[in-house]
Amino acid sequence: MDRYDLVVVGAGPGGYVAAEHAAELGKKVLLIEKENLGGVCTNRGCIPTKSLLNSAKQYVHALDCGKFGVHCNDVSFCLEEAMAWKNETVETLRSGIQFMMKTKKVDVVFGEAVFVDNHHVKVGDAAYETQYLVLATGSSPFIPPIEGSTLPNVVTSDGVLGLERLPESIAIIGGGVIGIEFASFFSMVGVKVSVIEMMPEILPMMDGEFSKLMRREMKAVSFNLGCKVTAIKENGVQFINAKGEEKFIESELVLMSVGRRANIAGLEPLNLNVDRGAVVVDDHMRTNVDGVYAVGDINGRSQLAHSASRMAQVAVDDMFGARKASMNYDAIPWAVYGMPEASGCGLTQDGALKNGIEVKCATVQMRSNGRFLAENGKRASGLVKVVVDAMNGRILGLHMIGPYSSEMIWGAAALIEAGMTVDEVKDVVFPHPSVSELIKDACFALK
Amino acid sequence: MDRYDLVVVGAGPGGYVAAEHAAELGKKVLLIEKENLGGVCTNRGCIPTKSLLNSAKQYVHALDCGKFGVHCNDVSFCLEEAMAWKNETVETLRSGIQFMMKTKKVDVVFGEAVFVDNHHVKVGDAAYETQYLVLATGSSPFIPPIEGSTLPNVVTSDGVLGLERLPESIAIIGGGVIGIEFASFFSMVGVKVSVIEMMPEILPMMDGEFSKLMRREMKAVSFNLGCKVTAIKENGVQFINAKGEEKFIESELVLMSVGRRANIAGLEPLNLNVDRGAVVVDDHMRTNVDGVYAVGDINGRSQLAHSASRMAQVAVDDMFGARKASMNYDAIPWAVYGMPEASGCGLTQDGALKNGIEVKCATVQMRSNGRFLAENGKRASGLVKVVVDAMNGRILGLHMIGPYSSEMIWGAAALIEAGMTVDEVKDVVFPHPSVSELIKDACFALK
Repeated sequence: MDRYDLVVVGAGPGGYVAAEHAAELGKKVLLIEKENLGGVCTNRGCIPTKSLLNSAKQYVHALDCGKFGVHCNDVSFCLEEAMAWKNETVETLRSGIQFMMKTKKVDVVFGEAVFVDNHHVKVGDAAYETQYLVLATGSSPFIPPIEGSTLPNVVTSDGVLGLERLPESIAIIGGGVIGIEFASFFSMVGVKVSVIEMMPEILPMMDGEFSKLMRREMKAVSFNLGCKVTAIKENGVQFINAKGEEKFIESELVLMSVGRRANIAGLEPLNLNVDRGAVVVDDHMRTNVDGVYAVGDINGRSQLAHSASRMAQVAVDDMFGARKASMNYDAIPWAVYGMPEASGCGLTQDGALKNGIEVKCATVQMRSNGRFLAENGKRASGLVKVVVDAMNGRILGLHMIGPYSSEMIWGAAALIEAGMTVDEVKDVVFPHPSVSELIKDACFALK
Repeated sequence: MDRYDLVVVGAGPGGYVAAEHAAELGKKVLLIEKENLGGVCTNRGCIPTKSLLNSAKQYVHALDCGKFGVHCNDVSFCLEEAMAWKNETVETLRSGIQFMMKTKKVDVVFGEAVFVDNHHVKVGDAAYETQYLVLATGSSPFIPPIEGSTLPNVVTSDGVLGLERLPESIAIIGGGVIGIEFASFFSMVGVKVSVIEMMPEILPMMDGEFSKLMRREMKAVSFNLGCKVTAIKENGVQFINAKGEEKFIESELVLMSVGRRANIAGLEPLNLNVDRGAVVVDDHMRTNVDGVYAVGDINGRSQLAHSASRMAQVAVDDMFGARKASMNYDAIPWAVYGMPEASGCGLTQDGALKNGIEVKCATVQMRSNGRFLAENGKRASGLVKVVVDAMNGRILGLHMIGPYSSEMIWGAAALIEAGMTVDEVKDVVFPHPSVSELIKDACFALK
């Protein structure tokens, strides 16, 4: 029986980062994956959606560049070619992970892991012994038990990423990040899009004024909020709207994006504590079972690829590292890569209110910014908002809608992590002209 | 005679920020400007060049979007319309500054300031008395005394921004930021571009490996390094190359971008200390004369718009503020907005070597990054480099070439200002997938 210091099950951004990090610390590591290296993130999540969104943005830019003095005719979008580019991107990244595992001397086995106990795992006939176990099995799209949810016109994000032609119309059930990114993609390339959301607002991690602006900017999308889907038919979705009226939206395709559930089937022999369908972990990613850690979507704490990677680092450092860290959920950035882009990190004003935290906030309009104006014009919209601890002036949250949001937000994670105050940020020199200057402007706008 | 707490001369990003900031502190402020609000930055510098570069990038994207599944025909670039968009952007920003001055109750007078002494200034027949004086008169393009430099085919950046048609070819004398941004603009829109630089490398603030990549990526531009221009003719530029050979480059237009000189004419009555053509200041922007401060290009310390704005804040806080600050030149970001974009903040490896500072450095390739690959493909290039103090692990510099560089760099300014160490940056969670993740990767790549 092969012996390892660490066996990692699941090769997504939680699993492969755990494997890589432990290997760098000189440990003997086995990575078990039942499908593809990179997990959902690389193969059916973050990467393919961003590739398609980039194609759609290029299409919109080509349609809309006349005002900048650039003209072109016969602008068209070819889904097949966009998918081919996406597939090439995914393959490149997948082989990058494979190469990295080889370089770091991580053993990789493809197959379904069968758990014997906290120190023993099998894959087919092969049995492995290990000191530590990292569970990183991820999550899968949740299909609620609605009438018609198994019809062939109903797809999840997995199905959308394999489409061979664009539908004429799509109804998207669920206005979270996945739903909104696909709504953005399809509406950009000319598909008629309806979003049906049960809650009174889309994108629950956003402040209300931001969600509202997102909807307003996604002009071509019809949003149906506070609506409960009652049935899916072959030609659309039936629901009860916020006024209690029965409605029907016709659509060729229905995307089910109401959430994802942790993949915990098969873990029973480990006797893990499970709460609301996810494995319970502490801030070091330890489960209740000695030597067993759970990182990423499986523990339900933060369903983001970069959270999974960070959890993996925290877990491996807890096992083998000289520097112990614990997971801090206060400075995890998120981004929505549609058009417009949006991002945030830390506390929202709504969140502060809900939790009784006394904060000061300031919001600035992007159209006051030189670069934003040069690249978007004075009729375009965007926001930057800063949330500050009223007691000590520390930055607790930063939120934005507008171009470059997803690439500017890392600095917010850094300064929240560093505990910087508004006055300290006012001393930071921001490059001019850049959209990022608005972060400073928001700090100066605080009263 | 009108009495003020502060008279500011020059309404660029140094001057108008000084005026605004003092007004916010409740002071009575006069702003004197001889041309346009916004100064060179808004009217003939940062903003118009970024507007034109954006148009050129849109043009290149439209030409090059086939690989993403987006097709279009007859792609063309219209300089007149790009200039019109640029002019609209400039006017919007200029009126924004005007509106802000009005809102903040800053008096604005247009005309040439005549200095009487450190408390008295005249504009035409009007005389003003003031407690403090901020000089923010900026800089002008330097025209070296080369044979032919006054020919009508020779322009500075001012002239380029007013062009009515694209030349067939342009020779750019000087490979600094201004020269390289225009080289990028003209080559993107199909003009034949030659850069002639006296030094052995372009972009002196960059590490050598970065400058080299910049040149390699600007494939359509011919770079002539280590070359001394001997004469400008009506049909091109004559120079002696690095091997000592006499050469001639034919070109319709010649752009002179060898540097800018501080505007100090007329300041004589103030008896200021002047060194190498610039007004000498301390770290609070004080000159040798009581009550007189000099901010921005006039003091020659850092010829960047955002440096001028920061200097203005430091100066005004020194006069009136509760919180004194001093100018820190170690965390001033810069950006080059061509294609590719580049940016940096803090110490370079070359700079560390030159100054005997012991550092550790790591460079990562952008093509290892998921978002970069999705949006650019595996044959594209980009770099991120981190420079760290070998003694204490503090981040001293961060440098990048590639998309989003100019919008990611603010975070580097924040973390250098905050004194963050590599280990602290490793604990920061970066959003996935984003190009910004490479900053973290560079930190992890440090040995």
